[in-house]
Amino acid sequence: MKVTAKDIYSSIDAIREKAPVIHNITNYVVMNNTANALLAIGALPVMAHAEEEVEEMVNIASALVINIGTLSKSWIYSMFKAIREAKKKGIPVILDPVGVGATSYRTWTARELINEESPAIIRGNASEIMALHDDKTMTKGVESAALAENAIAMAQQLSKKYDCVVCVSGATDYIIEGRQIIKVVNGHQLMTKVTGLGCTATALCGAFAAVEKNYFAATVQAMVVMGIAGEMAAEVAAGPGSLQMHFLDKLYCLTEDDIRKRLKIEG
Amino acid sequence: MKVTAKDIYSSIDAIREKAPVIHNITNYVVMNNTANALLAIGALPVMAHAEEEVEEMVNIASALVINIGTLSKSWIYSMFKAIREAKKKGIPVILDPVGVGATSYRTWTARELINEESPAIIRGNASEIMALHDDKTMTKGVESAALAENAIAMAQQLSKKYDCVVCVSGATDYIIEGRQIIKVVNGHQLMTKVTGLGCTATALCGAFAAVEKNYFAATVQAMVVMGIAGEMAAEVAAGPGSLQMHFLDKLYCLTEDDIRKRLKIEG
Amino acid sequence: MKVTAKDIYSSIDAIREKAPVIHNITNYVVMNNTANALLAIGALPVMAHAEEEVEEMVNIASALVINIGTLSKSWIYSMFKAIREAKKKGIPVILDPVGVGATSYRTWTARELINEESPAIIRGNASEIMALHDDKTMTKGVESAALAENAIAMAQQLSKKYDCVVCVSGATDYIIEGRQIIKVVNGHQLMTKVTGLGCTATALCGAFAAVEKNYFAATVQAMVVMGIAGEMAAEVAAGPGSLQMHFLDKLYCLTEDDIRKRLKIEG
Repeated sequence: MKVTAKDIYSSIDAIREKAPVIHNITNYVVMNNTANALLAIGALPVMAHAEEEVEEMVNIASALVINIGTLSKSWIYSMFKAIREAKKKGIPVILDPVGVGATSYRTWTARELINEESPAIIRGNASEIMALHDDKTMTKGVESAALAENAIAMAQQLSKKYDCVVCVSGATDYIIEGRQIIKVVNGHQLMTKVTGLGCTATALCGAFAAVEKNYFAATVQAMVVMGIAGEMAAEVAAGPGSLQMHFLDKLYCLTEDDIRKRLKIEG
Repeated sequence: MKVTAKDIYSSIDAIREKAPVIHNITNYVVMNNTANALLAIGALPVMAHAEEEVEEMVNIASALVINIGTLSKSWIYSMFKAIREAKKKGIPVILDPVGVGATSYRTWTARELINEESPAIIRGNASEIMALHDDKTMTKGVESAALAENAIAMAQQLSKKYDCVVCVSGATDYIIEGRQIIKVVNGHQLMTKVTGLGCTATALCGAFAAVEKNYFAATVQAMVVMGIAGEMAAEVAAGPGSLQMHFLDKLYCLTEDDIRKRLKIEG
Repeated sequence: MKVTAKDIYSSIDAIREKAPVIHNITNYVVMNNTANALLAIGALPVMAHAEEEVEEMVNIASALVINIGTLSKSWIYSMFKAIREAKKKGIPVILDPVGVGATSYRTWTARELINEESPAIIRGNASEIMALHDDKTMTKGVESAALAENAIAMAQQLSKKYDCVVCVSGATDYIIEGRQIIKVVNGHQLMTKVTGLGCTATALCGAFAAVEKNYFAATVQAMVVMGIAGEMAAEVAAGPGSLQMHFLDKLYCLTEDDIRKRLKIEG
């Protein structure tokens, strides 16, 4: 499969034109940034977690993003309700298994969620993807720098077992579906110093999956856009504070030309 | 009624001098921005949602802001406790019916809250105000661009029924009380790309209502200040990320001269 | 005791090298800023509040930061579980008694927490520290400007009773342990217009206490770094919005030379 700058920009255009509603059940830390990134790319974020309303909210949404970064019992219950409704309605579910491996509660929750209904896309860092697959792997916090390469075999197995796209993100992002693999090399080291940019990537996967029904392509497109906006922001940033601000500006202003000049994918 | 730059600046002066405590029971997405906007204008934000403490917190506050953006059962319970206490104490309640019409849970909650105790001010976008009034109206997410004009008649009916000020915000803001109507034309299109600026407007209504006992005037003043700070920020912003930052800076530095030069109200 | 620029920079170096995991159970308003400040100084923030996982999370952490800014019953329960586990494991607990004195719920919670297990460090503003010590003191919101001087005697008593470091922060920060006292005069007035910079200071105390086992020294170091990054940010800021952004950039870029030139401590 080949993903071109033209394809990526077509999806951005479609997002800007259709303004798809993206329903997020996500963590407290990143809600504001996630919502702002979705607005900047052209989507309409909604955040709702009450069991009384998640099903109705799924019904006005074009994608559902589940992020387990700050769990509690009632939120988990609503996540299950929401993914069942999303499956029934036929909209893609994107899962961010934040901190899986750090506690058994997170590991259990993420595994049960994907056992209940296969998500369209799972995006995590290497240690999260490994811990999702295998109990023996330990993670040091959510920003662990375990080598992504070690996670690829496990991502491939997860992809086959759950028939979904798995993205192992890091300095290089690996987007995997069955035997297909594409590497995205865009991005910048300073992005690891801003909280929640991984969660933002997951939310963007939701926006792209809302307009591009090939979820493998949608994930590649989202990760490229994430990386390019991040590197453009890093070039003018004086540190992680200004990086976050410029990132949203660049996301909002991204042109097809920016993508064509900077696109770095392999595979 | 006439609202002048001098009146508006007098209220800002009063806020800066008295530093009124504004108690917010608001949504997770915007808490940080709301608190920062209140600090920037000169007020003292407090956020507290536990049923065990909301009544005491209301008792040290000069206004109560209720925002239903991320509901759950225990928060709703505390909202009711807080508005009853606010009524008893005689401080204004400002309601932001975020996403009303998107789910029946939100619609029910907002309607029950205003039935329980009439708020001083309701501020929402056109689709929210329409859905608050009438079941037949549907909203597409919280940023829906339904024409504000259609919402005015419903806002007038809500204002009469609940004896409160209703603000229908959008490219033009309509501030309505009974038969009175003032239009505020300040603001900038880019503000719709920053999450929570509507919620910020509602919080600023709280700050102005804390020092200006004519709540119709207070709402006009808050919406003008919101719009002017927003357009000054947009003039120097490169996108929605920097808009949010400049907005807080402009709010903090706003002078009577800025208001005089830019004030655009009709009616 | 003498704290030098060299000591402070050694701790920063140690944080950057070891990247200690700091577990935060904190309030909704500041989670994003707190996480970003910890990343900027070189630590790894985790946020987790569910009773099902706080003990495991404490076990991968090098310090535990408890902040009571937006309480509710289940969060309080988890705070107790977490501090008991932290004591068992031997990692420092840092407490931020946000808004103590404003409601009896906060006052009760903070006092019970320190009665259960003595924290390593308590950091609050003058009114919070006074209210923690003495029922007769009232606080006007969380940003009250009660004179720090009045709080020093109470801080000394708290320090002796609970065998902990107490920091009374304000225009001058007073770091107190038994009879020892050091004043930090770094910082800038504009910092009071940004929500959560007090909470950020508390989180930084956690990062420094994770690498400097003399908690008195660790607190002084954290407050100096906070103040210097704040004054460097204020020099280039146009208001509170840009101050928050520059603060994170300055924290990330801080050099030994910056500290040497600006360090202002007495005592």
